[in-house]
Formats: sequence, structure tokens, C-alpha cells
Amino acid sequence: MSRLTPDVYGRWPVLEALRAGHVERVYVARETRAAPVLREIHEAARLANVPIQAVPRAELDRLLANRNHQGVAAAYRQHPYASLDEIAAIAAAAAEPGLILALDGVQDPGNVGSLLRSAEAAGVHGVVVPRHRAAGVTPTVVRASAGAAEHLAIAQETNLTRTLEWFKRAGYWIVGLDQDAALRYDQLDAARPLVIVVGGEGKGLTRLVREHCDQAIRVPMRGHVSSLNAAVAGAIVLFEIRRQRDVAAHKG
Amino acid sequence: MSRLTPDVYGRWPVLEALRAGHVERVYVARETRAAPVLREIHEAARLANVPIQAVPRAELDRLLANRNHQGVAAAYRQHPYASLDEIAAIAAAAAEPGLILALDGVQDPGNVGSLLRSAEAAGVHGVVVPRHRAAGVTPTVVRASAGAAEHLAIAQETNLTRTLEWFKRAGYWIVGLDQDAALRYDQLDAARPLVIVVGGEGKGLTRLVREHCDQAIRVPMRGHVSSLNAAVAGAIVLFEIRRQRDVAAHKG
Repeated sequence: MSRLTPDVYGRWPVLEALRAGHVERVYVARETRAAPVLREIHEAARLANVPIQAVPRAELDRLLANRNHQGVAAAYRQHPYASLDEIAAIAAAAAEPGLILALDGVQDPGNVGSLLRSAEAAGVHGVVVPRHRAAGVTPTVVRASAGAAEHLAIAQETNLTRTLEWFKRAGYWIVGLDQDAALRYDQLDAARPLVIVVGGEGKGLTRLVREHCDQAIRVPMRGHVSSLNAAVAGAIVLFEIRRQRDVAAHKG
Repeated sequence: MSRLTPDVYGRWPVLEALRAGHVERVYVARETRAAPVLREIHEAARLANVPIQAVPRAELDRLLANRNHQGVAAAYRQHPYASLDEIAAIAAAAAEPGLILALDGVQDPGNVGSLLRSAEAAGVHGVVVPRHRAAGVTPTVVRASAGAAEHLAIAQETNLTRTLEWFKRAGYWIVGLDQDAALRYDQLDAARPLVIVVGGEGKGLTRLVREHCDQAIRVPMRGHVSSLNAAVAGAIVLFEIRRQRDVAAHKG
């Protein structure tokens, strides 16, 4: 018996999600009357080998706070998350020191997707995302990542500070992006195994996470607005590490 | 007599745009019946000192292809664009060589806004955007720029290749981002006056623009997806130029 997780609801949204390959399970209220779009949902589910579960309409009403679900909802396919051990193993097998990206409260799915895309292009070995409601690698995030999410080892962790401690014990240097930091991002020692921690839009790193960083770096800025989008700032730092490592590799 | 430019239509969207300060002129169809929201539109327009122009409903129907305008539309306030001479003067007054960003077919307003935000933070002296329908500095772009658009000198030009030639004659080196380029972005001579040309998502630079560049650079990438978002790639290059110039200034 699976727990009901109605990530998407309504007949057309469910059909669309099914066709896009995002759905793991469809819920149909027992009381729902036949309709052409329902037949299409059954057909799409059959083709995609996705089970359809009959549920009491009252259950959908309750879970969806009486939103207009039209008797149909669906649970998204879970992203196949990696473990920290798997990420560390990928990094250990690489021809260079480990490079991990950790997200601390980046909420906007567009920014999360953009960071995954940049991280993959920068050759990051793995990413840690927080495990809380509506965060994680949702279909919106995968789309915003231009497919990069499918090629990355991504761990979903409840406790970021504990995760950072885990990486410290594994020999990693934990570096947080913080606009108030004294150190410039290009002064970072890129030759070390690194975990780069990017904070949320506007808020930056949470206090506890900042305290668990070995070092903080900033991207120096001109101008009046003086704030970079979190995804852009993260990309600039990751590509500076990539650049330094490439330069060192060509010199060596 | 102003030409009708109904950038936004419908009672609530017009009221919202008015309240956000985006509107230059409101159009109300003569045949429109009184309604509470119309009174609010009149009040908001009066407060913002925005004129209301009565027009024949048929005119709105025609211009808006019979979309549901509810008898109300509005023209956006034009962004106060700069001239190329003004941008060159700002660059000439700076304590470093000129740094200009030019956009070649970047369509997505989120990406345009993101590039403006990054450009402003990187200390760019001016930006050139194309002059065609729905491009330019719209309220959506301003919002995506987190306000940076208001602090930047932005020129809107019809003919980008002619604009690049203009900058060449003014002593600028024209550099296009092109993933097939031989030169790495960090090998660029940042000490020169530079125009950095960023192409559209997926398509990159148009052929004619590429032919007018003095040099092409690429951001080297790892990974399977191997493409950066245009706004992220532009930011990485602008901040590498900023970085090199800062390093040179501290050495000098």
C-alpha cells in the first residue's frame, strides 16, 4: 500500500505529466464518471507501464485541500538519488580532487535546475540538495537543468550540517559563498577536495551552515545593485575552480 | 496623437501594471461600461500622473486581434535608452578600459534580465540590446534584472553588425561567445576595451555577427550535457574579465 502523494492533479495536468514520463502512479477517485480524457489517461498509463490506483474521492479532497482535482491525481516518479558514499566514490575515481556542490535553501526550481546544469558542465562529481517539501529534483527542476539532472549524482539529505561534517571527515574542505567574506573566490585553493555551499536567494547561507564552513568566499562586485542571482554566483565559482584546475593540469 | 501600443490589456493586468509604475498611457474603449475596477484604474492613473485616452473599441479589437481586453489596455513606459555615444562616454570616463555587453538574439526575458543583473554587478559600462518586437527592456526584463536595468546605460540598436563596427572604430575589440571557438575565455586579453557578444539560447551567435567579431572565445566544459545557459555563460565571461582586471589593478 503506497502512501498517497498527489504531486499533480486535474485531468489534463495528469495526462500531460504522464506523457512527459514524470508519473510513477495515478490515483483515480472511485466515484469519477467516465470521460474521454480519463480514457486517455488510462491509455497513457498503460503505455508507460504506470499503475492506476482507485482511491476514495474524500481522500483526494482531504490531501488536496478540496482543490479542483476532477477525481484524478498522480505521484511523480522519484528522482533516483545517490548516497553520499556513491558521490564520494565517483569523486575518488576522478583524475582530480573531489568537487561537490551543496545547496542550502535554494528554493526556486529554476535556480536549482540552473545550478545543476552549470554544475554538470563544470564537471562537479555530485550535488547535495536538502530533503524538504517541494525541494529536491522535481520535474520542473529537471526541465530547468536542461537534462543535466539525469547525468549527475544527487544526494538528498535532511541535515546539511551533518552532511558537511561527513565530507570534512572524508578530507573535503567546506567553502561557503558569502558576500561578506574577506576572501575572494579566485583566492581559493582549487587543488583541494572541495564542497561548495550555495545559499538561498536573498537570504544566503543559514547561520548554522556558515558555522560549519571551513572558509567563506565572495565574488567581488561593482555596480549599484550588488547582488548576483544565487545560480549565477554558484556558476561563477564552480567555473573558476574548473578554470584553475584546467590551468594547473596544463602546466603540470 | 500617440500611436496605440497596447503592451498589456485586460482590467486587472492594466491596474497591476499601473500600480507597478510600468504604464505610460492607458487606453479605454469609449463603449466600456462603468465598473468598480475601472474606477480603480482611473484613480491609479490619476495618482501616477498617467494619461487616459478614449479610443474606439474596434481599434482595440483590431490591435489585439480580438483578445479579451475588456475595453482596457495600456502602453508601457519606454525604458530611457542611451545612445552609443553616451555609452562610449561612460566607458571613457571610467578608470579602466571600456567593457560593453551586446546581446545577439537572446530572447527569453528572464535571461536578458539575468544578463543585465550580472553585467551591472561586473561593472559593465553599457549594454546593447536589439530593437525588435517584444525584445528590449520590458517590465519583465526589469523585474528579472532585480532592478539593475535602471542603473545601466542600455542602447537599443536595429543593426548589431553596424553597432559592432561603430565600436571597432572607437578602438574596441569585439569578442563573441562561441562554443566552437579555439580560444578559452580566460586567455582573452582583458586589458583591451572589449565588447562581449552573447548569442541566443541554443542558436548562439548569428553568422553575420560572428563574422564581425575580432575573436571568438569558449567556456570549456565537462559533462554530458555540455551547454551552459546563455545568461550563465555571459556572466562567467564578464566576471573573468572583472577578475583579471582586478588582479592587474592590485598588482600595478
